[in-house]
Amino acid sequence: MKILIRNARLLELSVEERRCVAVENDRITYIGNGEPQGSFDRIVDARGRLLTPAFYNAHAHSAMTIFRGYGEDLPLDKWLNTRIFPAEEKLTAERVYLGSKLAILEMIRHGIVSFSDMYYFCESTVRAVLETGVKANISRSVVSFDEKADYRKDTRVKEGIRLFKEYNGAGDGRIKVDMSLHAEYTNVEPCVRYMAELTKDLGATMHLHLSETKKEHDEAILRRGATPTEFFYKAGIFESPVVAAHCVYLTDEDRTIMAEHHATAVHNPISNLKLGSGMMPLSKTINAGVRVALGTDGVASNNRHDMLREMQTALLLQKGVSGAPDSLKAKEAFLLATRNGALAQGRKDCGEISVGAKADIVLFDTDKLHLIPIYDHYTMLAGASHATDVSFVMADGRILYEDGEFTTVDVEKLRADFTEMHRHYFD
Amino acid sequence: MKILIRNARLLELSVEERRCVAVENDRITYIGNGEPQGSFDRIVDARGRLLTPAFYNAHAHSAMTIFRGYGEDLPLDKWLNTRIFPAEEKLTAERVYLGSKLAILEMIRHGIVSFSDMYYFCESTVRAVLETGVKANISRSVVSFDEKADYRKDTRVKEGIRLFKEYNGAGDGRIKVDMSLHAEYTNVEPCVRYMAELTKDLGATMHLHLSETKKEHDEAILRRGATPTEFFYKAGIFESPVVAAHCVYLTDEDRTIMAEHHATAVHNPISNLKLGSGMMPLSKTINAGVRVALGTDGVASNNRHDMLREMQTALLLQKGVSGAPDSLKAKEAFLLATRNGALAQGRKDCGEISVGAKADIVLFDTDKLHLIPIYDHYTMLAGASHATDVSFVMADGRILYEDGEFTTVDVEKLRADFTEMHRHYFD
Repeated sequence: MKILIRNARLLELSVEERRCVAVENDRITYIGNGEPQGSFDRIVDARGRLLTPAFYNAHAHSAMTIFRGYGEDLPLDKWLNTRIFPAEEKLTAERVYLGSKLAILEMIRHGIVSFSDMYYFCESTVRAVLETGVKANISRSVVSFDEKADYRKDTRVKEGIRLFKEYNGAGDGRIKVDMSLHAEYTNVEPCVRYMAELTKDLGATMHLHLSETKKEHDEAILRRGATPTEFFYKAGIFESPVVAAHCVYLTDEDRTIMAEHHATAVHNPISNLKLGSGMMPLSKTINAGVRVALGTDGVASNNRHDMLREMQTALLLQKGVSGAPDSLKAKEAFLLATRNGALAQGRKDCGEISVGAKADIVLFDTDKLHLIPIYDHYTMLAGASHATDVSFVMADGRILYEDGEFTTVDVEKLRADFTEMHRHYFD
Repeated sequence: MKILIRNARLLELSVEERRCVAVENDRITYIGNGEPQGSFDRIVDARGRLLTPAFYNAHAHSAMTIFRGYGEDLPLDKWLNTRIFPAEEKLTAERVYLGSKLAILEMIRHGIVSFSDMYYFCESTVRAVLETGVKANISRSVVSFDEKADYRKDTRVKEGIRLFKEYNGAGDGRIKVDMSLHAEYTNVEPCVRYMAELTKDLGATMHLHLSETKKEHDEAILRRGATPTEFFYKAGIFESPVVAAHCVYLTDEDRTIMAEHHATAVHNPISNLKLGSGMMPLSKTINAGVRVALGTDGVASNNRHDMLREMQTALLLQKGVSGAPDSLKAKEAFLLATRNGALAQGRKDCGEISVGAKADIVLFDTDKLHLIPIYDHYTMLAGASHATDVSFVMADGRILYEDGEFTTVDVEKLRADFTEMHRHYFD
């Protein structure tokens, strides 16, 4: 399949300049002024549109669409214990499938082509990813409370291993399987040590929650004499690539550990604000040499899968809280939402518009009243654009969304199936 | 003109319930289960939509659309002195007309029907408001640096008075004219005293900037031995209704002055973050008895006229910064963006859906992927909705926007005129 995108504005260029971008199969093969030789299966006119890399959502619990708006105005511990955990008891494979699929459609609509997911019934999410054409790093979240148990026999651990063996690399590499520990406060040391070895043996990435709340961070120090990061470090977790969500309360030493081990800190600004957890010190984390990516978290604590909003919020928080509006630029924030997410997922040839890269492409409409005038594309995206300005989404060279239509999913059927499932969810 | 809106969800009701809302001329005349007697000029089917009061934007500089994205990543003083003030030197009546009109279209698109504007060339903004069908409290911003000058002869002051006499109440009350002092740090005491008397004599409202930055607040204390609020209070400003933008650094005593005089503090969370000014302590201000409304400020420091985003951001900041996610509820935040803005503008019969109120009505589409499922309408708006979900906007009983079409403006002509003006702006 060869696709030519004409008349596209590109982020780096002035607002008057236009380029052609050609895609062959799953890769970008040409970027230039003139049209390349050869015939194309499809020509897309990008007049009035800005071509950008698609968004990479580095931390999500996609199936939690089921709980969007369920459990509002609560702090993390009450939110989990009185609303989310009891509701999650009623999850089934089919329910997770529908919840994940709805999340994926919403993500596509907002220009997101890949997400790192941590949840249960992971095969259902794999199925939804394969069907819809997006990409994902999927992980089965492990919790452990018994020091004496044999973790080799734990169902969650076994499920994670089976998932890895069966699906890692599936869908021409669209599926990657990560290992996952839910968090420091939900795991015992022997299990963490075992998971560290296992992850290293498999050559996998470790996805976990880290220092999300002050309570979690301080209690770890009291209980273990170590911060959550130090605890994981001593247990060997950082010998594999780590994707750590939240990182609100890291110490300078924690950030050094993260930086030295090329770990990714995933900033989820909206979720952290909503649950009253606080704010990751963004520039401080970046300046410590830690790679930062952005995530939506589950929409039960958000309530939208909208990476543009995460980027805009991250940028505003950094400027407003530090009192230094020049401490983070729009372009840097955009990289967090795209390239850094791809790197966190171990997808080195993704998340940027360059010849040879995977063709993960979004077109933003720029002919909008709320975008007049445009001095610079990055600042337009950082301040003025809506995620609903996205009118075209391509993942690995395949068009997933165009001008209001999803190409891979029967939206009305999904809506009906989800609504019917949800009607009886709490029966 | 009689309009019937059928099958509408209402905010307070469960998601299954539907109501009819009838509008006669500029007022809501009926809300009920069944359809009212009589014939209608127009019937609107609101199936799949939520009917809410329209947004009231309590602090804006509408013509600053011209500078959207011009002057990024700068703190307030540099932003003003190196970018905005020099650029504003090139404003003309026609340029302000086009800038204001573009802002108004953007506001309508996002469900805003009224705004409080502080700027120059105010007749141009009045003209844009009258033409487009929205409402506004317009004010000519006064600055004064000479203690000895006769303020009666100041052009700005005279312009404000003429504006009041000529336009207050114009357009069947759609236009109100406020008096305005730019801020404490841009005015001398004699002028402030004169403006206090003048405002009282006219029976007008005073619109000003108040304790936006720490620098402004602390320097007033050094220079005058009084906070900006105390300074204005002693000069008699609070003897009229006051609409004070920002209020980031108010003291407890300042809040007491504000509360006792029924003043409105306008929270502009995005502008304050973007310029690194800080964050108004929202719940603290509300709990002190101060009426709080929300504003977008000018889009040069935002960069969108989007009150839904202001509301969502205000709510998230309050939860995240206080660490108390239950300290402000979605319903309370929604009132700040609607009813409290109307009250700040002295429009007591506006900003709510009730029989007898002015018909300022918005319909939000709820058949969207990012809104599935809906447990509660307020939390849907507070977390999940986009301002672009608005599909119908009515002000004073007149439909201004419906399903992508503006009824009062030739959008393509405006876009062309604005673009042409902007192309030569810095020549």
